[in-house]
Amino acid sequence: MRDVAVIGVGMNRWGELWEKSHRDIWTEAALKAIDDAGVDHVDAMYVGTMSGGLFVGQEHLGAMLADQLGMGPIPGTRVESACASGGLAFRQAYIAVASGIHDVVLATGVEKMTDVDGGRATYALSTAADQEYECYHGITFPGLYAMMARVHMHRYGTTREQLSAVAIKNHHNGAHNPLAQYPMEITHDVVMKSALVADPLRLMDCSPVTDGAAAAVLVPLELAKKITRTTAVRVAASAHATDTLALHDRPDMAWLGSTAKAAKDAYQQAGVGPKELSFCEVHDCFTIAEIMVIEALGLCEKGKGGEASAAGRTALGGEFPVNPSGGLKSKGHPVGATGVAQILEVVEQLRGACGVRQIKDARWGLTQNMGGTGASSVVHIFERA
Amino acid sequence: MRDVAVIGVGMNRWGELWEKSHRDIWTEAALKAIDDAGVDHVDAMYVGTMSGGLFVGQEHLGAMLADQLGMGPIPGTRVESACASGGLAFRQAYIAVASGIHDVVLATGVEKMTDVDGGRATYALSTAADQEYECYHGITFPGLYAMMARVHMHRYGTTREQLSAVAIKNHHNGAHNPLAQYPMEITHDVVMKSALVADPLRLMDCSPVTDGAAAAVLVPLELAKKITRTTAVRVAASAHATDTLALHDRPDMAWLGSTAKAAKDAYQQAGVGPKELSFCEVHDCFTIAEIMVIEALGLCEKGKGGEASAAGRTALGGEFPVNPSGGLKSKGHPVGATGVAQILEVVEQLRGACGVRQIKDARWGLTQNMGGTGASSVVHIFERA
Repeated sequence: MRDVAVIGVGMNRWGELWEKSHRDIWTEAALKAIDDAGVDHVDAMYVGTMSGGLFVGQEHLGAMLADQLGMGPIPGTRVESACASGGLAFRQAYIAVASGIHDVVLATGVEKMTDVDGGRATYALSTAADQEYECYHGITFPGLYAMMARVHMHRYGTTREQLSAVAIKNHHNGAHNPLAQYPMEITHDVVMKSALVADPLRLMDCSPVTDGAAAAVLVPLELAKKITRTTAVRVAASAHATDTLALHDRPDMAWLGSTAKAAKDAYQQAGVGPKELSFCEVHDCFTIAEIMVIEALGLCEKGKGGEASAAGRTALGGEFPVNPSGGLKSKGHPVGATGVAQILEVVEQLRGACGVRQIKDARWGLTQNMGGTGASSVVHIFERA
Repeated sequence: MRDVAVIGVGMNRWGELWEKSHRDIWTEAALKAIDDAGVDHVDAMYVGTMSGGLFVGQEHLGAMLADQLGMGPIPGTRVESACASGGLAFRQAYIAVASGIHDVVLATGVEKMTDVDGGRATYALSTAADQEYECYHGITFPGLYAMMARVHMHRYGTTREQLSAVAIKNHHNGAHNPLAQYPMEITHDVVMKSALVADPLRLMDCSPVTDGAAAAVLVPLELAKKITRTTAVRVAASAHATDTLALHDRPDMAWLGSTAKAAKDAYQQAGVGPKELSFCEVHDCFTIAEIMVIEALGLCEKGKGGEASAAGRTALGGEFPVNPSGGLKSKGHPVGATGVAQILEVVEQLRGACGVRQIKDARWGLTQNMGGTGASSVVHIFERA
């Protein structure tokens, strides 16, 4: 397998983009990434989208977007793994370049979520969980993560304040991200005054519904060193693991087994461990998710994720910064695009291009993108080449 | 890249399977393929499904089915390209094995189409076309293919009898396929007495709505030769191309550009042309589709597909047999599964295991799987190893 690098990234300004279609936002992100890479064509492209069918009544996005980009007849492939669709699309692009089948591959993610009414968006998202064993009984995603939070609080003493600490930190980081949907600072008081969605989770514990897209251009590392006008970023590891789709089937509802497995594989491939990472971009779809993810990644001890967050260890200047971009919480969460946008942040951090939210001397960055309640996890590690 | 072979295939009996869920039918096909391969595990799996969201309210099938198979935490990836989802899932599995990232990979396709009422199935299928430029104006797939048929008839003199010839031939072949949904012989009279769906296409010109799944096990060719208990089948070529999603954007509505491009690439990879092929399995979603596909594959001249079909050149004992399995028309068309089932037929033909419908001395087999009105085409060529 060939070494692979990222030489271009792009995303649009995320938000409730009523005036734009999914084609528009995807094209903006794709063209930005292609411009950033400085290439005049791509050989193939992958699109991560969770539910084109339920959100906008459009499947077959691989062909549609290759055409939209004016690059047909190149292969365009849509990949789906619920909220991990973007990370998994990037992984398929990585495998394609590593295999030698294609040289210049565009990895993208897009979701247009606001064109359906509220109830149907919640239904569309629920198809990431087990319909027959979970959703038919009425539960939705905030409810599933609320159960995980309750178990975590009961077993480890995780507190309401510690959940808030995650949201406060991510909004603080996102306030410096010009492409974030909600770039505003918040306080514990703001969280506690927000609506209770599923006890203990309040509105400000939840990532928002977002329209957005993100894109990255991958090439063989050797080619990257020749053509990049900036810093080439090497893909040091790509790992993907699954867990039971239904939460109740797991031996431990407060442990993300797929993230732990993918991280273990990724650390082995990259030859580094959590201590060497300069920072991480992780899947904080709910505040409790970030707490559980940093445990599964081995950044802190099992059960200590809440404590670590409240102590500032995950802050920008902390011991292991998490979500310098603002994370899903502040930046937004267009489900299929999230995994690719995490990679955009890592690339820009490793280039030293993040301004106020720049991690000093960043060398190794990790992304963790998750589907459902963690039935899928995709972990990538990147190194400044 | 490593040479890749198929060592196991499986599918369920296709039909209107009211008593079975999509999990059930997928698991039956997957276990059959694994048994047939004689392996005790797979390293990763791919699932082609067109619209889990719209048909059964379930996305995230990669993780769900890895779990269902009892093989979590292996990576499970869902791939979608409308009716070409199965062929494209197989292609991603092929790239994964060729790259060296995985050794034993399960490529599958599944669609459970009868659990939605008729109107919603037609809507779900329409999301393979361009919603904004085609479907919002009321057209559905029979209408789109009817327009292609009209252009073909007008330009090349293709006749109603020639359309029927495709259906009659495929039902004749399918009558010998014990897993086919409609294994019965039909006549031109039966076609003409069936309901007019979209002039000139009648019900018997259309492939049916089907519940079904299919699966194949891929390994490096070197490993295949060591472990297979039957004939290893080498993947000699894998190609994928796109065209405009909307039919009206094409320079020629009666020409399948994506199939022609994918076939050209595949012939180049395999080092054989249409003349060397022992037979083909192609995407006859409508009778006119098979006529246009055999032209795009170079099996006959442009405009002569209807004539070739009526003259028996595509029959089992003909010059270039097409769809010995019965094709989508007789075997059924569970959209995400079709591309993988085509490969199953090729593997069984190359093994010499097809009984009455066996192609004599079959050595090279080609599959062509198509999404929408041909916005995506996936072509594979296989050789008896």
